[in-house]
Amino acid sequence: MKIGVIGLGYWGPNLVRNFLSHKDVKKVIACDIRENRLQAIKEKFPAAELSKNYNNLIEGDSDIIVIATPVDTHHTLAKKSLEAGKHIWVEKPFTSTSAEAEELIEIAEKKSLKIFVDHTFIYNGAVRKIKELIEKKELGNIIYFDSERINLGLFQRDVNVVWDLAPHDLSIMTYLCEHRKVKALAANGIANFNGKENLAHICIYFEDNCFAHFHVNWVSPVKIRRIIIGGDKKMLVYDDMENFEKIKVYDSGVEFNSAEKIHEALVQYRIGDMFSPKVNQTEALALGAQEFISAIKENRTPLTSGKDGLAVVRLLEAADISLANMGKIVEFDSMLVE
Amino acid sequence: MKIGVIGLGYWGPNLVRNFLSHKDVKKVIACDIRENRLQAIKEKFPAAELSKNYNNLIEGDSDIIVIATPVDTHHTLAKKSLEAGKHIWVEKPFTSTSAEAEELIEIAEKKSLKIFVDHTFIYNGAVRKIKELIEKKELGNIIYFDSERINLGLFQRDVNVVWDLAPHDLSIMTYLCEHRKVKALAANGIANFNGKENLAHICIYFEDNCFAHFHVNWVSPVKIRRIIIGGDKKMLVYDDMENFEKIKVYDSGVEFNSAEKIHEALVQYRIGDMFSPKVNQTEALALGAQEFISAIKENRTPLTSGKDGLAVVRLLEAADISLANMGKIVEFDSMLVE
Amino acid sequence: MKIGVIGLGYWGPNLVRNFLSHKDVKKVIACDIRENRLQAIKEKFPAAELSKNYNNLIEGDSDIIVIATPVDTHHTLAKKSLEAGKHIWVEKPFTSTSAEAEELIEIAEKKSLKIFVDHTFIYNGAVRKIKELIEKKELGNIIYFDSERINLGLFQRDVNVVWDLAPHDLSIMTYLCEHRKVKALAANGIANFNGKENLAHICIYFEDNCFAHFHVNWVSPVKIRRIIIGGDKKMLVYDDMENFEKIKVYDSGVEFNSAEKIHEALVQYRIGDMFSPKVNQTEALALGAQEFISAIKENRTPLTSGKDGLAVVRLLEAADISLANMGKIVEFDSMLVE
Amino acid sequence: MKIGVIGLGYWGPNLVRNFLSHKDVKKVIACDIRENRLQAIKEKFPAAELSKNYNNLIEGDSDIIVIATPVDTHHTLAKKSLEAGKHIWVEKPFTSTSAEAEELIEIAEKKSLKIFVDHTFIYNGAVRKIKELIEKKELGNIIYFDSERINLGLFQRDVNVVWDLAPHDLSIMTYLCEHRKVKALAANGIANFNGKENLAHICIYFEDNCFAHFHVNWVSPVKIRRIIIGGDKKMLVYDDMENFEKIKVYDSGVEFNSAEKIHEALVQYRIGDMFSPKVNQTEALALGAQEFISAIKENRTPLTSGKDGLAVVRLLEAADISLANMGKIVEFDSMLVE
Repeated sequence: MKIGVIGLGYWGPNLVRNFLSHKDVKKVIACDIRENRLQAIKEKFPAAELSKNYNNLIEGDSDIIVIATPVDTHHTLAKKSLEAGKHIWVEKPFTSTSAEAEELIEIAEKKSLKIFVDHTFIYNGAVRKIKELIEKKELGNIIYFDSERINLGLFQRDVNVVWDLAPHDLSIMTYLCEHRKVKALAANGIANFNGKENLAHICIYFEDNCFAHFHVNWVSPVKIRRIIIGGDKKMLVYDDMENFEKIKVYDSGVEFNSAEKIHEALVQYRIGDMFSPKVNQTEALALGAQEFISAIKENRTPLTSGKDGLAVVRLLEAADISLANMGKIVEFDSMLVE
Repeated sequence: MKIGVIGLGYWGPNLVRNFLSHKDVKKVIACDIRENRLQAIKEKFPAAELSKNYNNLIEGDSDIIVIATPVDTHHTLAKKSLEAGKHIWVEKPFTSTSAEAEELIEIAEKKSLKIFVDHTFIYNGAVRKIKELIEKKELGNIIYFDSERINLGLFQRDVNVVWDLAPHDLSIMTYLCEHRKVKALAANGIANFNGKENLAHICIYFEDNCFAHFHVNWVSPVKIRRIIIGGDKKMLVYDDMENFEKIKVYDSGVEFNSAEKIHEALVQYRIGDMFSPKVNQTEALALGAQEFISAIKENRTPLTSGKDGLAVVRLLEAADISLANMGKIVEFDSMLVE
Repeated sequence: MKIGVIGLGYWGPNLVRNFLSHKDVKKVIACDIRENRLQAIKEKFPAAELSKNYNNLIEGDSDIIVIATPVDTHHTLAKKSLEAGKHIWVEKPFTSTSAEAEELIEIAEKKSLKIFVDHTFIYNGAVRKIKELIEKKELGNIIYFDSERINLGLFQRDVNVVWDLAPHDLSIMTYLCEHRKVKALAANGIANFNGKENLAHICIYFEDNCFAHFHVNWVSPVKIRRIIIGGDKKMLVYDDMENFEKIKVYDSGVEFNSAEKIHEALVQYRIGDMFSPKVNQTEALALGAQEFISAIKENRTPLTSGKDGLAVVRLLEAADISLANMGKIVEFDSMLVE
Repeated sequence: MKIGVIGLGYWGPNLVRNFLSHKDVKKVIACDIRENRLQAIKEKFPAAELSKNYNNLIEGDSDIIVIATPVDTHHTLAKKSLEAGKHIWVEKPFTSTSAEAEELIEIAEKKSLKIFVDHTFIYNGAVRKIKELIEKKELGNIIYFDSERINLGLFQRDVNVVWDLAPHDLSIMTYLCEHRKVKALAANGIANFNGKENLAHICIYFEDNCFAHFHVNWVSPVKIRRIIIGGDKKMLVYDDMENFEKIKVYDSGVEFNSAEKIHEALVQYRIGDMFSPKVNQTEALALGAQEFISAIKENRTPLTSGKDGLAVVRLLEAADISLANMGKIVEFDSMLVE
């Protein structure tokens, strides 16, 4: 496999490093229009080839084009790459609009090419372990999903905090809650500095009485990265700031004997043992690269495909509409989270 | 002073104990229709007198009637008491509707009686210290207020999680952010068990581009009671689950040099020292009792008066309307948070 | 049963409250030479009888005399009580010297009376759960016991920090590690203020290559109450400052395949799941009272008897000798921890 | 400057990377007898030269020889390097015996060469900040130093846990408590696996009634890296496992009015504010390299010189003697901690 990586800013060098160390990769070409970034790659990864012209790179002999540029350039670069017959790996969020995402999916299907959207948390050991617990019905039926990702963060020039941080949590949610139907979304927030929201709360209603909430914030004095998943059997907390016990499963919940009683008396609650499973520490990016290369070889859809990217972009679009209207509900015609 | 306490459930005995130990209180009469509750008071607080008839109590010689019954009885008992010429102490939330609250305020004014609403956190050492820091302009201008009060809690028969838990945080917010105008409120949530919401998120927009969010939840495996206040100078975290360092003030924030730059480049952030002030440990209830008795003696409005109770009830009412309509915005005609 | 409680300082009122609420107790007589303390009991616990003369109390009709006075008075009061034919409950530490403890045990045996030493942590839910885990061989063979109990504490007039705090941890250790033989003890520490040690480290060597360490400190800015128990199968942390997850059992340890390999290469380690069992919240003092009353009725030795008190006093005595000699080893002729 | 680095195991590659990026370094030659390690350096740091023969390296044109090999080879390699006229950088612990250390110091002095011992924590931002606070007398007079460094760690083939972990904390202590005189040392511990201690407690008595304790442990289920420093004015906790608030300064302590009172009554304690200063995040190794190169240029003794290495080795030697004799006191003829 030959890999071309376009965009060598914050995340690009990690992509170069990971593909270089993959056993099936023969060549990695790193591309950026900025000389200083190319120079930095040359020093750190002398095995990588360099390119200053992304058109040449896309037209060249790469099997995969990796797109790690600002989101507003994703569609143009991705479309060119697909049209040049390349599989594409696109950083999150997939595209700036759902229409762009849909067009790319259509082109890829026609040309039998694969799209990988880098929802990197899906390859994270903790999220894999939570998926495993949910599939084994350890939590029972999920009744709510609550996510908090707040920090003193770098403001992005081009996007608000929702487009910067929420793709992580929305992709985790769609992965963990798959096969549910989204009924509506509401987002509230505030832009205190440059007209782009720096704090937002997104609420999602599902058809089966499940509920999700996401808090993203660039102006928090403390760093919190925490997801709570409430099941009707057990409940789980995933705290990504913990060094060791990232996942805690609580054998706690609400209990009642009969439907009548609920209206009569206080619902009882139950507190039991807690369990913290060991989490695999393999780097998510290495597992993502492996998944995409395998999917291409086996001619199958990768775990985080264009459709997954599209689902997240639809939710982001809806959040922007709702934010612009002080939390107005955006209803979906039963959008399936696959 | 003679004090009559009606309602000896969870909170009532604490009220009896506190008034008994106040130096200006000569007599406390504890009243409940349940014999077993009266018996329990008799054993624990032999100095208290007992009564099974609240009408007699209200008509008796008490100076203050303390109302610690379910919220749907507050208005009736409070009105009777005021009409009988008594000052009233009412547990939170003040009333079931804002109309009820307004009527009580009006009667009290006409009869020159005092209303104390037991927003107990306003008398808590940590909240007093935060108020002091805000008044000294330590945080600068407040840009957001974020509150989380989640737990595996007892479901209430008569109210949802908003009416049960949010009065605490709404009263803290109105106290700390006074003199701001509320523009709109949106609330999203879910009722998984008995038709009453067990989880809710309330967002409040202020006229001056400040924003507040409240998360209340009865079905959380972990207990969190945390408020973050973002100022444009410093930021503060109040973690009520900490045994010692309940308040942390962070000399951190967002910085930029000129208005143009914000649109050009990344906004910078700054991380500095952290400071945790000592917090007074005196019981909030004792300070509340002291405040009300002083206010009556000095013929002045107590710190947490009927108007404060009304402001919280208005926000709770709006939250219910919004919840019933999946987060629909409820606009206020510039409600002043006093 | 009739109970006489001598000493109404910090702990005495809790003892009065507990015995008053025990179903088999008909009468509790509270005794102290200080009028203000008797007055406080009268107000809080009107059901208790009062006495100002401990000789009368001891000679009276009580079945049990509870001794909650300073440690240097324990022996005198306990001996009088036994000689008057009473069972005795003695607060920790049992006596000031092992000779005193031995004499009391001898008298009690001769007169068929029971001694209960209030090692209260033995009746604590977390310690009971740890005992259960150890007995089920969950941890394997215990290789070390490490305890830390540090705080900004009140200096005691009459004893150093070892006699004040270490009885808790020494009693927990002798309970959890019973049937082991103590080989030697060394204690190092410092007296910075009034000639009594305010900080000490006690190390205990067992015959079977097990090791224990205790850190007690009255001058720590942070409050730590933590025990680590290293087993050759699993390891456990008991953190008494945690509100919820007090016990954590780690499926972690050291592993190697053959004896030769240990000397050749690095020993491997293994990190696995963590488990936090639910802990019973019943008040330890209520369970202690129940245990002593049952033991008297059933004519058996209570769980924390004079012998257990003696074992702890022997270790405390040895610690004092070692402290006075800068950590000099005090060897035991195979003292059995029963 | 030309740098030769001998030993490319765990730490060596970090040394190569750091010296390569220092502005005054022209050449770095990496040396190891193992081909695979040389190969790894070649791939990661193509700018480094490689050598398989340390004798050639030592005899070559390097200005500094960096020794990152097992401790039992330090003396031989260091002596050869000094005799070849090179300045030396030696990883901790400096040597296996104090005699070895003394010989190296003597040779270096005669030949006007510099020795740098890599006590890396002395260049750590948190330790620098603590030093600054102590020098500004923020804590008052230090009365105790308590260190805990425990973990599930890799057993070393050649040394016990004391020689592996304690050099970090002993070097921090000698740096922070300089100008004090060590009176005696006692160490207790246990070897459960391969004859080398895997757990140890070291206690140090100073002449001025200051006391230090060190807990090192390779078999702990939890990772703790915490130092408490008790001053008679304020107290400090340095928790290296905290991501953000590594240092906390507590305005807490013991207070009394007059000398007589101490013996009469309970000593009072005082709890006040807490303060967490910002800590510089620059990599310690980069600052260490800078310090050594500057010291050579300026012909001065580096901050962590051979004498500092010797002081730590003396304490380690004493700990081994004490451990071998179950905590027997090892007295010093007033060893000055400089």
